[in-house]
Amino acid sequence: MGVVVNLEKNRINKPSLESLTTLVRDDLSDVNKVIALRMDSPVNLITELARHIVAAGGKRLRPMLTLASAKLCNYSTDKRYVPLAACVEFIHTATLLHDDVVDDSSLRRGLSSANAIFGNKASVLVGDFLFSRSFQLMVEDGSLKVLQILSHASSVIAEGEVLQLMTANNTETSEQAYLDVVRSKTAELFAAACRIGAVLAKRPRVEEEALEAFGMNLGLTFQIIDDVLDYSAKTSDFGKHTGTDFRDGKITLPIILAYRRGTDKERSFWRRTLEKQNILDGDFERGYKLLVKHGAIDDSIKRARHFGAVARDALGIFPDSPAKRALIETIDFSMERVH
Amino acid sequence: MGVVVNLEKNRINKPSLESLTTLVRDDLSDVNKVIALRMDSPVNLITELARHIVAAGGKRLRPMLTLASAKLCNYSTDKRYVPLAACVEFIHTATLLHDDVVDDSSLRRGLSSANAIFGNKASVLVGDFLFSRSFQLMVEDGSLKVLQILSHASSVIAEGEVLQLMTANNTETSEQAYLDVVRSKTAELFAAACRIGAVLAKRPRVEEEALEAFGMNLGLTFQIIDDVLDYSAKTSDFGKHTGTDFRDGKITLPIILAYRRGTDKERSFWRRTLEKQNILDGDFERGYKLLVKHGAIDDSIKRARHFGAVARDALGIFPDSPAKRALIETIDFSMERVH
Repeated sequence: MGVVVNLEKNRINKPSLESLTTLVRDDLSDVNKVIALRMDSPVNLITELARHIVAAGGKRLRPMLTLASAKLCNYSTDKRYVPLAACVEFIHTATLLHDDVVDDSSLRRGLSSANAIFGNKASVLVGDFLFSRSFQLMVEDGSLKVLQILSHASSVIAEGEVLQLMTANNTETSEQAYLDVVRSKTAELFAAACRIGAVLAKRPRVEEEALEAFGMNLGLTFQIIDDVLDYSAKTSDFGKHTGTDFRDGKITLPIILAYRRGTDKERSFWRRTLEKQNILDGDFERGYKLLVKHGAIDDSIKRARHFGAVARDALGIFPDSPAKRALIETIDFSMERVH
Repeated sequence: MGVVVNLEKNRINKPSLESLTTLVRDDLSDVNKVIALRMDSPVNLITELARHIVAAGGKRLRPMLTLASAKLCNYSTDKRYVPLAACVEFIHTATLLHDDVVDDSSLRRGLSSANAIFGNKASVLVGDFLFSRSFQLMVEDGSLKVLQILSHASSVIAEGEVLQLMTANNTETSEQAYLDVVRSKTAELFAAACRIGAVLAKRPRVEEEALEAFGMNLGLTFQIIDDVLDYSAKTSDFGKHTGTDFRDGKITLPIILAYRRGTDKERSFWRRTLEKQNILDGDFERGYKLLVKHGAIDDSIKRARHFGAVARDALGIFPDSPAKRALIETIDFSMERVH
């Protein structure tokens, strides 16, 4: 357990989110103010639960993407990206709250998840509240185009969540079905967050689409690596228990590859553990060895790297700038979390 | 159990929703088409669950209010009220889905509730999908004013739901706190549904506000009577088990009145049954007798009648028309469900 996957050793400067956070520091602090302000409600429980989520923090990766994309497009007219970035984070947080209810998670970003403390009921309803708040923020911005992009994204995310529920514990899930889920439940919001930057700056459609493609492929990279991390990361590093997906019977890319490449005996092992959820002592270690045996972890990382490369090329039409370099470093950061 | 409250006997023409359904028949059939079309998704489970809800039917009261309000304002330019009425129904249905999860209900409108058949997880996620779809429908309409009204309503509804969760099983809940919950979780959507009619017709603000006040007070009437029905209606009539609220420890108006008017011994009975949820054989009958003893059911009906009167007067600024008569009959219908 807790084996750290290490593909390229001896790297000196580890990619980080530093360029991105430096680039958007001031605006992100405004975003955090909007988040705190608009999470507030006369209903105590909402404020309490919201504060818990804010305390749990998170990287604010999605709102930072909106801010950096706007900067990439030289948008500097006003600060419209601030409430919209907050709106993106609200959609994300609402999804997390409902996700944790659906997954019955007890940990989120290394802290107890909201549902574990406040109960599933409160998490469902406060999630609804945050969804509604996100729509209010969009409406206040007043751009129908932005509204279209974000309401479409919300709808796709919800579809992705249901799709994931349907493929849960099904070892026959194909790589394509897995990617469909990741695309809709994770990558779509990355794509929307980035696209908004170009929309605000009234850039030509080709730039909107480039930022959307960047976000989509970054989202795919990010989620695949996230799923790989569940077979490698230490709890203290990533706020998730290694093996959580295994215990929940989640069918992620490493599993899909190992299952398809496996022997009949191995497949019946995966069916027992992931479908029937009959997990015995030592099963996680046995599963991990099968992943390694079939190169399923390394190849998942290669798949993620592929999408990362597509994301990088999507930005090719933009001239070099600090914003572009920060966005590209985000791809590297997403990849390098496995090191 | 199943005692039918009967205040005014020998009434011949029982108020019904017939004027309203006749008035909006054609448009409502278009609304139902939009609902069926837009509930559709490539994700099977969404379509299945959505079909179940459509089959479970419901009166479509809220979308009918939008249609009738538009007619009251002589709006006849185009059919924008059709997708917006569907949007109102989507918000309502999403709320019901999440409500049933939060309440752990097994029955909804006389049929098994979605969560009982498809599970809580699917209900949470399909609820999210319908919420998102409702926003897409609004965005397609393109009126920022409508978006403002409906996104605000969604947010208030979510707050109301959390508020209800917080006051659940608390016998000390005041009449004011109860009304706050009803106002936000039920009446706000009635108000928004009606207000939209005036907004579409570009009527003066005073008419918008009149329709909003009508909807708000109709919603209060409707919900108070709904809560009274739980101590009187037969399952077959109303699709709800009599006594469900009692068994769930819901603190509704009849309870609040009886508790405040009761003796110490009676109050400890309410605390045992509603707060501690320690319910023995014969407790429902005993509770029912206490409600009758203190006139709590009759007085709840009087409170509902008060809001109904306010709703009626709110429409006073509109000249007589079939639409106005249909809306007023809706108040009477809401009241007369207890007969």
